[in-house]
Amino acid sequence: MRRALRDPQAVLWLDMQQPTEMEYSLLDDVFGFHPLAIEDSIKYSQRPKIESYDHVGDINRQGYFYMVVHGPDQKGHRQGVQTMEMDLFMSQRYLVTIHDDELKTIDELAQRASADARMVLETGIDMLLYNILDHLVDYYEPILEYLQESIDDLEERAMASPTPQVLHGISIKKRELLNLRRIVGPQREVIAQLTRGEVPFIRESTRTYLRDVQDHLIRVVEMVELYRDLIMGARDIYLSSISNNLNQIMKTLTIISVVALPFTVVTSFFGMNFESIPGLHSPLAFWAVVVVMIIAMTIMLYLFHKKRWF
Amino acid sequence: MRRALRDPQAVLWLDMQQPTEMEYSLLDDVFGFHPLAIEDSIKYSQRPKIESYDHVGDINRQGYFYMVVHGPDQKGHRQGVQTMEMDLFMSQRYLVTIHDDELKTIDELAQRASADARMVLETGIDMLLYNILDHLVDYYEPILEYLQESIDDLEERAMASPTPQVLHGISIKKRELLNLRRIVGPQREVIAQLTRGEVPFIRESTRTYLRDVQDHLIRVVEMVELYRDLIMGARDIYLSSISNNLNQIMKTLTIISVVALPFTVVTSFFGMNFESIPGLHSPLAFWAVVVVMIIAMTIMLYLFHKKRWF
Amino acid sequence: MRRALRDPQAVLWLDMQQPTEMEYSLLDDVFGFHPLAIEDSIKYSQRPKIESYDHVGDINRQGYFYMVVHGPDQKGHRQGVQTMEMDLFMSQRYLVTIHDDELKTIDELAQRASADARMVLETGIDMLLYNILDHLVDYYEPILEYLQESIDDLEERAMASPTPQVLHGISIKKRELLNLRRIVGPQREVIAQLTRGEVPFIRESTRTYLRDVQDHLIRVVEMVELYRDLIMGARDIYLSSISNNLNQIMKTLTIISVVALPFTVVTSFFGMNFESIPGLHSPLAFWAVVVVMIIAMTIMLYLFHKKRWF
Amino acid sequence: MRRALRDPQAVLWLDMQQPTEMEYSLLDDVFGFHPLAIEDSIKYSQRPKIESYDHVGDINRQGYFYMVVHGPDQKGHRQGVQTMEMDLFMSQRYLVTIHDDELKTIDELAQRASADARMVLETGIDMLLYNILDHLVDYYEPILEYLQESIDDLEERAMASPTPQVLHGISIKKRELLNLRRIVGPQREVIAQLTRGEVPFIRESTRTYLRDVQDHLIRVVEMVELYRDLIMGARDIYLSSISNNLNQIMKTLTIISVVALPFTVVTSFFGMNFESIPGLHSPLAFWAVVVVMIIAMTIMLYLFHKKRWF
Amino acid sequence: MRRALRDPQAVLWLDMQQPTEMEYSLLDDVFGFHPLAIEDSIKYSQRPKIESYDHVGDINRQGYFYMVVHGPDQKGHRQGVQTMEMDLFMSQRYLVTIHDDELKTIDELAQRASADARMVLETGIDMLLYNILDHLVDYYEPILEYLQESIDDLEERAMASPTPQVLHGISIKKRELLNLRRIVGPQREVIAQLTRGEVPFIRESTRTYLRDVQDHLIRVVEMVELYRDLIMGARDIYLSSISNNLNQIMKTLTIISVVALPFTVVTSFFGMNFESIPGLHSPLAFWAVVVVMIIAMTIMLYLFHKKRWF
Repeated sequence: MRRALRDPQAVLWLDMQQPTEMEYSLLDDVFGFHPLAIEDSIKYSQRPKIESYDHVGDINRQGYFYMVVHGPDQKGHRQGVQTMEMDLFMSQRYLVTIHDDELKTIDELAQRASADARMVLETGIDMLLYNILDHLVDYYEPILEYLQESIDDLEERAMASPTPQVLHGISIKKRELLNLRRIVGPQREVIAQLTRGEVPFIRESTRTYLRDVQDHLIRVVEMVELYRDLIMGARDIYLSSISNNLNQIMKTLTIISVVALPFTVVTSFFGMNFESIPGLHSPLAFWAVVVVMIIAMTIMLYLFHKKRWF
Repeated sequence: MRRALRDPQAVLWLDMQQPTEMEYSLLDDVFGFHPLAIEDSIKYSQRPKIESYDHVGDINRQGYFYMVVHGPDQKGHRQGVQTMEMDLFMSQRYLVTIHDDELKTIDELAQRASADARMVLETGIDMLLYNILDHLVDYYEPILEYLQESIDDLEERAMASPTPQVLHGISIKKRELLNLRRIVGPQREVIAQLTRGEVPFIRESTRTYLRDVQDHLIRVVEMVELYRDLIMGARDIYLSSISNNLNQIMKTLTIISVVALPFTVVTSFFGMNFESIPGLHSPLAFWAVVVVMIIAMTIMLYLFHKKRWF
Repeated sequence: MRRALRDPQAVLWLDMQQPTEMEYSLLDDVFGFHPLAIEDSIKYSQRPKIESYDHVGDINRQGYFYMVVHGPDQKGHRQGVQTMEMDLFMSQRYLVTIHDDELKTIDELAQRASADARMVLETGIDMLLYNILDHLVDYYEPILEYLQESIDDLEERAMASPTPQVLHGISIKKRELLNLRRIVGPQREVIAQLTRGEVPFIRESTRTYLRDVQDHLIRVVEMVELYRDLIMGARDIYLSSISNNLNQIMKTLTIISVVALPFTVVTSFFGMNFESIPGLHSPLAFWAVVVVMIIAMTIMLYLFHKKRWF
Repeated sequence: MRRALRDPQAVLWLDMQQPTEMEYSLLDDVFGFHPLAIEDSIKYSQRPKIESYDHVGDINRQGYFYMVVHGPDQKGHRQGVQTMEMDLFMSQRYLVTIHDDELKTIDELAQRASADARMVLETGIDMLLYNILDHLVDYYEPILEYLQESIDDLEERAMASPTPQVLHGISIKKRELLNLRRIVGPQREVIAQLTRGEVPFIRESTRTYLRDVQDHLIRVVEMVELYRDLIMGARDIYLSSISNNLNQIMKTLTIISVVALPFTVVTSFFGMNFESIPGLHSPLAFWAVVVVMIIAMTIMLYLFHKKRWF
Repeated sequence: MRRALRDPQAVLWLDMQQPTEMEYSLLDDVFGFHPLAIEDSIKYSQRPKIESYDHVGDINRQGYFYMVVHGPDQKGHRQGVQTMEMDLFMSQRYLVTIHDDELKTIDELAQRASADARMVLETGIDMLLYNILDHLVDYYEPILEYLQESIDDLEERAMASPTPQVLHGISIKKRELLNLRRIVGPQREVIAQLTRGEVPFIRESTRTYLRDVQDHLIRVVEMVELYRDLIMGARDIYLSSISNNLNQIMKTLTIISVVALPFTVVTSFFGMNFESIPGLHSPLAFWAVVVVMIIAMTIMLYLFHKKRWF
């Protein structure tokens, strides 16, 4: 590798997956990166960022960039939204990519590169960077679909059966959206710096391609904002479904209590032990009372029906 | 077409509706557009944007612009708000418009152009662009009216009969507004770039006309913001109508329970089997008790009436 | 008029109220305004804006400005907030004002001008513009007062009697505020362009006066923002008054149900047909039971009173 | 005074408390201020602002500034938050302060100045301005403390006894905060203009002092923002206390209704007039029924206790 | 110290913990700091800020900076979030740190410095500043963890047992977050001024290190924003848990009332004293009535179960 770095014609791509400590030491020994950048590349849970460094004490190298980007977890996005960090060191002539998980993106590109090394050489380090970023960002698409589906599902369940589980689901989904926004927002800014030409060795023609990656990220940010509004709507629906259910319950209670009322009033009236209550000894009076009670109940039910209570 | 492009005096307008793959290949073969722009024009659901490209390897052409704009669906806007994408490639001497659905705008202009080709030639490609954009934007007007009406309708129904369907309608309308804002916001920015003179072959005089299109879009954005506030107000009205209904139900229940109370207390008192309850054997006492019960109920009803419960 | 326009010393003020089509044609024939500006001046419901135009083909005129401003309706502001559009064309030597309704502002100034034409000539077109704008903006004051009063009134009614009418009133008031903000916001921007010196023929000394108009508009915007916060507060008060009423109702229901309880329990106990219930034959037992019931009720009432339920 | 103004060495401080019309005329006659500035200084309820004016027709004076600042009412801040307007005219050699109420700040400084006029002369007009502003702003501290205390108090009362009075108090406090923010926000901007060096005769060394005043105002703005969040929290607590109370009431009602249920069921069962109800003639059966009722009630109470309903 | 300050080679670090008045006087006598900066360093509860001062009357010193930063309280962060102020005066050749509480950061660095004074000399004042700030900021990490845990805990408790204590906890946590944001926001701005190179004697290489501190602070700000959203979510869960509980209570009440209804209706029917009620004398009728009551109750329970009420 040292030889490759010394050769002004050589182009080097080093990919490290879950690097051991020894492999990390390469960053210092061979490339001579800044200790802070190496420290950041070892620690995980960094925000997306891009930083330029000068090579100390080595004139013919023109400085390098350290970049942190996040891509969606490419394995099982159905369990929730998770992002995966990738650290990149790049200069005009080399690219170092460090990541923890296996990446289909990288694997495919690596196979193509090993099959035809010239392809990578001819398109240049900046197009390689574009290919990696483009593939990484493409994986946001299934995540957005998954979020769309789960929000639709939550909204439906909030309408049909507003159990506390639905609210818990809404709360978890909101947290995922907040986390996603926290990642994608600064990432867009990082790509914007690449397209704005602040990184010298990215060619004009490559910037056109990187604008495409940026467009994709802007769309992701917009969709996350949209989903946030929708999830708040799902919460509203949930809260109002609960209120609605309460109203339904109270209506039932009230209807039944009220319909039973004429019955209760009449029967307890004739349950008094006064000797002189009229009609106690007449069968006709008894049946008249029964008929009156049934009519009263029917009127009550009719009134509630007219008020659209059931 | 190749000839027309080679002729420095010619002006070319190519309109493609639901182009086949072969037709798409024209973009590459004849015009030599950038592969990314062509890819974007094939894929739908692009955000409105404008991008400048240089013509590679052909000195006498001065670069071209790729633009994505959205117009309202011009067929049946009563079913909801839908937008329709149109892709444009334009340079000083040609304009390529690509769209999926039939467009009255385009049809009318095409008829006029075929009737009098000079008219288009004389006013120039930039005025043709203005005409297309102006007609496209005009169709937002019925959408705004439709939204205004449906929000007013939702507000009324939220007041009169706050069923879950109303809340669902509010949720759908909010989604439509969010989607519309997501389209019109960046579109305004695209037109602003045209009016600010960032596109070289749009003349000063045409920019005055494009300012008019931009004014129209600003109005659409403002109305969408206004409608969002109104839809939130409709939600408030809905929630408060539900609360109000609950109060009404509880009042009914309480009034009836309470009015029945003196009756229940008195009848169950005289229902006890004590031999020594005074008055059980006197008809006078019985009627006195009946009168007392009626008076008590009347007082109760009077008190509730005074409290404005019914 | 043509003569006046040709005379380099003349100053012209043309005021058109509800112009006929023929009068509108003056704008094109005599002044030669841009067709888009004329179209905008004919259509109503334009947003406040200012646009500069060049005079085509006439060198000694230095361009003109087309301005849309809104003033409050000066007739019956007690029925709600309504604004009234005024279109202005102005250049160094003339001012054209177009409006639909009768304006006291214009009438007064016109009378003064006809009485002493020199006054207008001497102060210049820019001071005339200031006078019109200043008088227009002054009429916002009674609108702000009216809004303040109606919000205070709504808040009071929301506290005292939270009927759905109050909520409807709040919703209407919010809509009025949103509409007012939508007008005054861009209008402030229009005046800001005048004071910033972007319009060449407005003199430094006049700009000092226009700053006063701008101050006034900033105050209106601030008050509208404040009222929006207050109206949201009124809504909160409304919603909480409803909750409060519900609590009051439920307390009444609960107190009455619970106070009746010892009575119900005891009377139904002695209403059982067991022969062996002790005391049924003793008058002392009867009176003892009555006393126990009264004491139990008193204790219940005392407990609720201690809990501050009534 | 005219003499003092003519003397290029003299420094003049004129303080006017509740000026009469004659005193106001001094502003025009002696100082020759712009009529708009004088009009603004006569009208109250101006927003804080700073405006520069040129002296017309008098070359050796270098223009002056008109400033509106607000200070807290220094008398009885316990009745609520009120601000008090002060108008200032200042140039390199004079300072005119106009205010309605008596100001301790001004009194103290005036006494010091009359005791040792040199002190004021030596430190300069700009340090005098700093002293006035610094003392004015210091009086915000007790207001912030008062607001902190009353919000804490409201929060506590919202928790303990959520009466409508508390909500009214919250609404009033919110209005006070909105008004305070409307004053302090632009005032910060006014002081910022002084520290940024936009006013020529304020020396570099004085600007260091004015930065201190600005820091103080930024703190006030931040605290007002914080209090706004806290007052919204108090509202939340209020609303949820009401809900909580309702739950408590409903629990009480439900517990009592339900605990009475086994009693009601059993006693009404044995209250039926069937001859063949078993056990009516046996004292043992009676006592067994009583025991069963007591056990059933105990079980009910135990179940509710387990559910933590009381 | 005076000697050290006069020696152009010397580097001085003065740390003052809870300085006495005499120690404070050193700031004036020896260093000659500006009285306002000294006053600010004596008063506590300053906002984070950075201010540049010139040394008056001493040419070979190049000005100094006064900085206020806040670090988390390093003692017992489990009791809540508290920050601790540190005042710094720094120039090219000295650093004065003033703080109230004992700081592990300072102690460690002081021990290292006293063990090997060269270390500090060689890395320079700016790296010493970086070390202090870096250690200070590191202590935010446990605070963020503590906040994460307590929000998770509140959310869980809001779900499981929504007592008013939970709401009080939410209110306190929100206040802590608001206070933390009020501190960390301006602090980020202070560090940003250091990294942007606005402080002349901070070297390019040190700025790379300070960027790391700034990254850390941006993360803290982002997490505080995230926690604020989460705490609002916890509040939502709390409010909805209360509603849910109310629904549960009302369901219980309604079920029990309704299930008891057929019993009440039937028993009171046969409790009437009519002689002619059929079946009173037949044991078969009695048992038939009992069976009918049990069947009616079972049907009621079955219906509620089908509606998923329990």
